[in-house]
Amino acid sequence: MTTNRQFQIAARPDGLLKESDFNYVETAVPEPGDDQVLVKVLMVAVEPALRGTMVEDKANPANLQIGDVMGALAAGQVVKSNNPDIPEGTMVQGLFGFNDYFVTHPKAFLFSVIPDGVPLEAALYVFDTSGLTAFLGMMQVGKPQPGEHVLVSGAAGAVGSIAVQLAKIAGAKVVGIAGTDEKCRWLTEDLGADGAINYKTDDVATQIDALLPGGIDIYFDNVGGEILDAAIGQLRLGSRVALCGRISEYSNTGPAYEPVNSANLVNNCRHMERLALFENADKFPAWKEAMSAWIAEGTLQYRVDMLDGFKNLPKGLIRLFTGENTGKQLIRIG
Amino acid sequence: MTTNRQFQIAARPDGLLKESDFNYVETAVPEPGDDQVLVKVLMVAVEPALRGTMVEDKANPANLQIGDVMGALAAGQVVKSNNPDIPEGTMVQGLFGFNDYFVTHPKAFLFSVIPDGVPLEAALYVFDTSGLTAFLGMMQVGKPQPGEHVLVSGAAGAVGSIAVQLAKIAGAKVVGIAGTDEKCRWLTEDLGADGAINYKTDDVATQIDALLPGGIDIYFDNVGGEILDAAIGQLRLGSRVALCGRISEYSNTGPAYEPVNSANLVNNCRHMERLALFENADKFPAWKEAMSAWIAEGTLQYRVDMLDGFKNLPKGLIRLFTGENTGKQLIRIG
Repeated sequence: MTTNRQFQIAARPDGLLKESDFNYVETAVPEPGDDQVLVKVLMVAVEPALRGTMVEDKANPANLQIGDVMGALAAGQVVKSNNPDIPEGTMVQGLFGFNDYFVTHPKAFLFSVIPDGVPLEAALYVFDTSGLTAFLGMMQVGKPQPGEHVLVSGAAGAVGSIAVQLAKIAGAKVVGIAGTDEKCRWLTEDLGADGAINYKTDDVATQIDALLPGGIDIYFDNVGGEILDAAIGQLRLGSRVALCGRISEYSNTGPAYEPVNSANLVNNCRHMERLALFENADKFPAWKEAMSAWIAEGTLQYRVDMLDGFKNLPKGLIRLFTGENTGKQLIRIG
Repeated sequence: MTTNRQFQIAARPDGLLKESDFNYVETAVPEPGDDQVLVKVLMVAVEPALRGTMVEDKANPANLQIGDVMGALAAGQVVKSNNPDIPEGTMVQGLFGFNDYFVTHPKAFLFSVIPDGVPLEAALYVFDTSGLTAFLGMMQVGKPQPGEHVLVSGAAGAVGSIAVQLAKIAGAKVVGIAGTDEKCRWLTEDLGADGAINYKTDDVATQIDALLPGGIDIYFDNVGGEILDAAIGQLRLGSRVALCGRISEYSNTGPAYEPVNSANLVNNCRHMERLALFENADKFPAWKEAMSAWIAEGTLQYRVDMLDGFKNLPKGLIRLFTGENTGKQLIRIG
């Protein structure tokens, strides 16, 4: 416990993220100050939104500069404590970033103690940004009713796969869109989706029409661009749209995709919302409680795509943008 | 007190409403049954949505048939009571319709006792559907922040004029759209709007750009159609859109207006919602409380367009669609 490995930001991303956007360095293990704790990081979670912290964007409060350690949610164990509330040995999560060791404080943003018996994977996934985002989008914006037609894009991803299951729990008819046949099989065979569309081999609009005849009541969008446009084209009266991500556009340096079907939003959509997770922080405890019951019953499944090794941190982030991951991407580093 | 005047629906409306869509009849005054009360109706409120109850629409729970008495919110006094909770003399409001007398029950939908000291006008306006709809759209969907750019169409109407004032109370910069210079002066001189656009004489898009340079943060729409489209064309990133009404389209029997600027919704809008007032019924008491404080302080003004006489009930409704009213249209009948 003398060396702290880190990945710092080497360059502002240009198009797809690449390994050379990160710089591996070794520094000294930091010392906790008054009321602080030193965390040994064991597992790091990555999500597409992290790319947004790397670009030049003064409006993003999480914006990073070149030379900064890459930020990310992570889980670990307190190995040195100057705070009697958080004794050594406590399992915790927070914004620890691409670090082996991190000094933090219990009042830091997103810091929390992981309850006994909750696996690190669940803490970083279902009860953290991905699961809570799925809950917000499906249950607070979508509000699925039995028999309603629900379409989820990026359905095999971290947020999408939870969103699919929440809609099934509510009794809706659910179709997921993913990019490989294996992911599509996972959706229908394991997660209970009523249908799946492989956007790389199927015509998305034709398949939406075939699998959800009459149109879409709820569209949960993780991808933006052409697939969003195809979905909007089949929204029916009273529909709801949860705009969660636009991964197809994050790496686009050209002009923004111009949807052609969007008149349907004006004419048919009852509620469209770009999800703002942290504006709903007061509701997180109730949402976590609902989801932890479903986890305990085995109703809600989660799938983790685990990479091993500190050196794989950048790769874990990069592969989110190439569709290589299935389920929540985590990297075990300790 | 022997005759009950009524207007029944004579024909399904086709295009603009007209007097011949209603049939004047005189019937006997009804007798209240067990637990019921007989109300003498004193004042009736009309709103554009009432037209929707007259067309063939099985999905609308308030849908009426030819020969039914026209429905509407109204206020009156209990003149005969078989219910000890609602003694004779109590001022009440509810769905009493185009009637002189109406038998109802305290558990009927939208029935409530009017508190002492609240004028019938305020009960039927600010604390009922129009005021609560303005509150829902501006405060729960729009959420105006100081200095934000807010545009309201139908701004001199019942809902719009309250929406304008709520945005001003929040410290936003507010521009209203209306159809006469007199209404525009009322908006800027009496209600405190920072600007007004006469859509009959101004180029709406040009004036939005001139009065709200840089774009719109919140658009509160009462009209739909071309004006909605012009507003969407200037939505800026993070904007919110409250879809309240589409009066320009209610009487349109041709194909729906196709907006051309709606890609902006996908790219820039953070929250768009078609207002569903009664899904928020649990919040009405808190909203009424907030608004009654502003009424008592004189911060929130309301303007009533009062017609007199039972025979003017159809005319009161019809003139909503021709832009003749300024403020909430009420008809005093008792």
